[in-house]
Amino acid sequence: MSATSESSGSPILTVPVEIPDHLQKPVGTPGPRLLEIERAKASFSPRDLELYLYGKDYIERRDRILPVLENEPAFNKSRIHYMDRGEKYRFGLRKEKRLTQIQMELGWDDDDLHMAEGLLDLPASFNLHRSMFMKTLRAQTTEEQKELFLRPAERYEIIGCYAQTELGHGSNVQGLETTATYHPESKSFILQSPGLTSAKWWIGGLGRTADHAVVMAQLYTPDGKNGQLVKRGPFPFVVQLRDLKTRELLPGRTIQDIGPKAGYPMVDNGTMLLDQVEIPHVNFLAGYASVDPETGKFNKPQHDKLAYGTMVYIRASMIQQARSIMARSATVAIRYCSVRRQFADRDAPQTDDGRQPAETQVINYQLVQARIFPPLVQAFAFHFTGKEMYRLYHLNEQAMKGGDFGILADVHATSSGLKSLCTLMASSSIEECRRACGGHGYSLASGLASLWSDYLPQVTWEGDSYMLTQQTGRYLFKTFRTLLADRNAPMSKENRTADYVLKYIANPEAKAPFKYVGDLSDPQLFVDAFGHRAAYLTATALRKRDIEKRSWNSILCDIFRCSTAHSQYTLVYNFAKALQEDEDLKSQRALHRVMTTCFELFACHTMDTEAAEFLSSGYLSPKQHELLRNRVHELLAELRPQAVPLVDAWNLPDYLLNSALGRQDGDVYPALVRFAQGEPLNRTRFNVDIHSDEIEVGPEEGAKVSSKL
Amino acid sequence: MSATSESSGSPILTVPVEIPDHLQKPVGTPGPRLLEIERAKASFSPRDLELYLYGKDYIERRDRILPVLENEPAFNKSRIHYMDRGEKYRFGLRKEKRLTQIQMELGWDDDDLHMAEGLLDLPASFNLHRSMFMKTLRAQTTEEQKELFLRPAERYEIIGCYAQTELGHGSNVQGLETTATYHPESKSFILQSPGLTSAKWWIGGLGRTADHAVVMAQLYTPDGKNGQLVKRGPFPFVVQLRDLKTRELLPGRTIQDIGPKAGYPMVDNGTMLLDQVEIPHVNFLAGYASVDPETGKFNKPQHDKLAYGTMVYIRASMIQQARSIMARSATVAIRYCSVRRQFADRDAPQTDDGRQPAETQVINYQLVQARIFPPLVQAFAFHFTGKEMYRLYHLNEQAMKGGDFGILADVHATSSGLKSLCTLMASSSIEECRRACGGHGYSLASGLASLWSDYLPQVTWEGDSYMLTQQTGRYLFKTFRTLLADRNAPMSKENRTADYVLKYIANPEAKAPFKYVGDLSDPQLFVDAFGHRAAYLTATALRKRDIEKRSWNSILCDIFRCSTAHSQYTLVYNFAKALQEDEDLKSQRALHRVMTTCFELFACHTMDTEAAEFLSSGYLSPKQHELLRNRVHELLAELRPQAVPLVDAWNLPDYLLNSALGRQDGDVYPALVRFAQGEPLNRTRFNVDIHSDEIEVGPEEGAKVSSKL
Repeated sequence: MSATSESSGSPILTVPVEIPDHLQKPVGTPGPRLLEIERAKASFSPRDLELYLYGKDYIERRDRILPVLENEPAFNKSRIHYMDRGEKYRFGLRKEKRLTQIQMELGWDDDDLHMAEGLLDLPASFNLHRSMFMKTLRAQTTEEQKELFLRPAERYEIIGCYAQTELGHGSNVQGLETTATYHPESKSFILQSPGLTSAKWWIGGLGRTADHAVVMAQLYTPDGKNGQLVKRGPFPFVVQLRDLKTRELLPGRTIQDIGPKAGYPMVDNGTMLLDQVEIPHVNFLAGYASVDPETGKFNKPQHDKLAYGTMVYIRASMIQQARSIMARSATVAIRYCSVRRQFADRDAPQTDDGRQPAETQVINYQLVQARIFPPLVQAFAFHFTGKEMYRLYHLNEQAMKGGDFGILADVHATSSGLKSLCTLMASSSIEECRRACGGHGYSLASGLASLWSDYLPQVTWEGDSYMLTQQTGRYLFKTFRTLLADRNAPMSKENRTADYVLKYIANPEAKAPFKYVGDLSDPQLFVDAFGHRAAYLTATALRKRDIEKRSWNSILCDIFRCSTAHSQYTLVYNFAKALQEDEDLKSQRALHRVMTTCFELFACHTMDTEAAEFLSSGYLSPKQHELLRNRVHELLAELRPQAVPLVDAWNLPDYLLNSALGRQDGDVYPALVRFAQGEPLNRTRFNVDIHSDEIEVGPEEGAKVSSKL
Repeated sequence: MSATSESSGSPILTVPVEIPDHLQKPVGTPGPRLLEIERAKASFSPRDLELYLYGKDYIERRDRILPVLENEPAFNKSRIHYMDRGEKYRFGLRKEKRLTQIQMELGWDDDDLHMAEGLLDLPASFNLHRSMFMKTLRAQTTEEQKELFLRPAERYEIIGCYAQTELGHGSNVQGLETTATYHPESKSFILQSPGLTSAKWWIGGLGRTADHAVVMAQLYTPDGKNGQLVKRGPFPFVVQLRDLKTRELLPGRTIQDIGPKAGYPMVDNGTMLLDQVEIPHVNFLAGYASVDPETGKFNKPQHDKLAYGTMVYIRASMIQQARSIMARSATVAIRYCSVRRQFADRDAPQTDDGRQPAETQVINYQLVQARIFPPLVQAFAFHFTGKEMYRLYHLNEQAMKGGDFGILADVHATSSGLKSLCTLMASSSIEECRRACGGHGYSLASGLASLWSDYLPQVTWEGDSYMLTQQTGRYLFKTFRTLLADRNAPMSKENRTADYVLKYIANPEAKAPFKYVGDLSDPQLFVDAFGHRAAYLTATALRKRDIEKRSWNSILCDIFRCSTAHSQYTLVYNFAKALQEDEDLKSQRALHRVMTTCFELFACHTMDTEAAEFLSSGYLSPKQHELLRNRVHELLAELRPQAVPLVDAWNLPDYLLNSALGRQDGDVYPALVRFAQGEPLNRTRFNVDIHSDEIEVGPEEGAKVSSKL
């Protein structure tokens, strides 16, 4: 078995089959030449666009860190697709150690590390230690606790994880079953899992790696009067899990890895049952609450709202991540579809000698463009909105410090809706782009199939992207009710929701004001249209709730639609605003021109996709819809020559893409052959005689060990 | 490394961590009890529905074959998710051998084998030998060739594959690069790969297993006049690849496995370059063409159209497969969402003692229903259309034998459109259902993540599901033009396309004739609506092509929409027809009732999803659309109590589902724990000290072998 010799440290396998020299050349125009031709069509400088998108600091940082990663053997990705889960975990653990060492050696700051993690794209066992474990220890600890837990964690003397989700409870934190009961007599908490569904589950790093955990458990403290235990809600506790040296589990902890998942193979998501586990008072991360050590008296936490700020930050970063996913999927599909040629155009004339006309690049097919260009322009849409959400996050943090919670609700609701929409769109785009790569998209060499598997949890965690929309819906209802009651109700000047709701209330029967294709070149037209639709859907859903008195559950689908509409409005608004107001962009005409085309395709395509609602409200007429749909097709053709230059502007390194199809140089076919040559199975010959129990004939090289199944 | 001891034949691993006895019980109402309650709600007999769907023969066959599979150690699926690719290939090869032995021992016929393959759901290395290799040998051979190739293949003395696709050419068979040149002097063909892109690629079973291949190559024969070589198009040739005993490659063959894919791990998809490979004249599978052995004179094949019959058959079987995929995804999601409870209903009253109200089953959320009920009712829609396509296939075969090609074009075009639509819908449904399972959907224990990976190629092969729609479009254009020129042009009575096109031509301004929800209970209303829309889209696209003289490429998106609309019409038509005309169904009132609800949800949901086009044509008014959307929500609630009984009616065995979440008994949580206990990583302790190069602390049991990475 190939895996055996690998894991015991033997060198890279020798290639079993060599391609004869005279057959190594692809037939037809080579990929590198085809991409060269594409790049010559650029109407703008991809390097200027790159600088505009990322800024100088980011590019400088990336260019400094990338070579370090590319040259580190522990970070070599060339064999990961041949590894089994066990090998991948080990590879991941080694990567984590080297990354930590390098960080210390080179004095990387948090941004450097974050850049490295992004380029590595190999989430592994220290993931939660570096993020949630340390974050919680930083945010919710006293000085004493920082000394006890945070400092050792920062020195990696202890490795932690964050244990919240349970087998029976994911989304509903209030419903967690694990208990932590305070005993004043021993000044300790006893942690207990009441049953099987109480087992912590999915906890990253818990299965094999972590020796400490922040455990979320329902706090019970004795009531002042009669000492009866009273439930206080979920709070975090530090629990040691394993002996630091022997790595053996401490008593009362039943811990294991939960087994293989669709992706994240290097992460040891784990499960844990706690049985009468006693921890001292100091292990309670009080945050803003406290338990009196002597009496057990409980003091409620203040400032619940501050936690929302963190959520906004996480969701803003998920939008920026979705941006990168879009750009990455589009890069692979657009480059490969420029290199791949299949069939001649149906309208192409036969050549004089009766031979078939030359085959066309796949990217020339309208039906291919319609699938791979939307993700490309959506990446830009996400970019502008992600940037704006970071701005609002910082603005809100500043405001809250001054006691001003005026924009929190709007920013939180918008970030919830965007988390939902952007993660759903990003996951669809990966698959859409993978399919557009035809058969080779299915190979792990494409880089897209594994990207899909690893990206999927984003749709579920940090608030399920379907159920989460209730947060946005609730806020939209509230805003609508407020403004309906008083059009002059005070609203922050940053509140975009109020803008469109007020416009709608003033004129619910508004119609789309376009008649000619040329009219569609005004970005404001789309801002108004998406605002009207979001308000229309909110008004419709609100009527069901407030007038028809329908149950909340019976309008969940309507609420989902409201949240989607609000989020699409936000994407359109921020993109339009950049075109209209960003001086940096406006001063660079070539960039502004191509961004305008991207915006038009984004806005028209989104509007066409959601046309039913624009038509149903009467905002759009059937004739206008036909014009819009045709405009989408025109825009695909308009964007076609800029497709490769636009993905080049994102400048995602080959090291990150790890894709034979999406290579910067377009040399696709030899890369696919190299991928085949790496397959360990190719070392072995097999016995296919149905009457024989023998499976392997014996390795083609090395020791003559023949194993039976 | 765990894999090591596995592959060398050691027994199943011992469980590293045991759950304490007193913590083995899930908290709250157990899953089995919850499913019991669901089953008590049935308004019909699931067993009667099962019989109606499958028929007695199918059920008898399934019940006879299933226990054989369940009791065969070589078919035990419990460990497949822990295996690496090499182990999986070996497992698959062993499975193929045992399956062949059992087939011979028990005298299984082709239908029995097909049933077994379906229940096993473990496509492996003999896949193409059993299907395309033998099929081609049966269809395209002389008696002499049957003796030479088919008989040994039937006895598994030779193992074959079918080598068509090339590295640079998938869809475009006419563009294949591999050549086969006839040399009358030696009475042999020389096969040659002209370059790297000519390498056969993706060929199932080629990589490590097959010793023979049917190779599709461009035939070149000398021209009668001056002996110049003339290209005759792609034809099949039998080529031996390996020595039957040593399994070594024969000279001139460069063959290897192409490496890991998103799914299909047990299949050794392979690549092959042929360099001056000489084969005798008899290895040319002439089919209906021939090459004169003496002169090399080429005789063209007749009856091209017969090949379309086979395509119709394959596509009909893909519809039935999509049906099973839908039913399977819905089964897992509906059962698990009935067992899983999360959050209390927002409108639920607080209990008197101030505690939170009980959590609700996830299946009660409208937004969950809206995602998992459509696949359920789509499965029934696919069922009726799949059945009808088989009937038309047989009808067409009979007709063609008599020289009547009157329905071929309609059946072929419809089967192409349905292949596209059904595979796209089935793949989306798997993922939709997986997401509805929340976090646990991401575990391979869900059975859905791996189902997705294995199902995906269906979207690409047998005609890419996007590009294939051009076949349907071309036919719709032709029919429309014919009927526009002459409304009385002769059409087969089986031609449904003509029905709706004629209706549309007679009244293009027709409006949907419903005003009240009650009007929607007439199936014919939906047949008319979907027919009108399909005709409207065809008319619109045809106008662009014929009047505006637009290029074919510039209307590919329109054509895709036409094909989708035609296929949705077909699904609605066949479902409605069964309700209206199937005496077997009509005589069983309880079944007819529940199928009617399923039809209504299918039709209303599909119409709502595609509402933009119904609105744009003016067929549907905004008011009607609102009524329709609300009706979808009502139907979700109506179907809710029948959801579990309906998936029970499909009666998909646990052995097939292989899902901890979709278990027939609902005992989900202990199954997830068992899945964790099987994870090989759990045997090992790891050294997480960042300053140490050691990765493993050493196995917790067995020999003290510590490996370094």
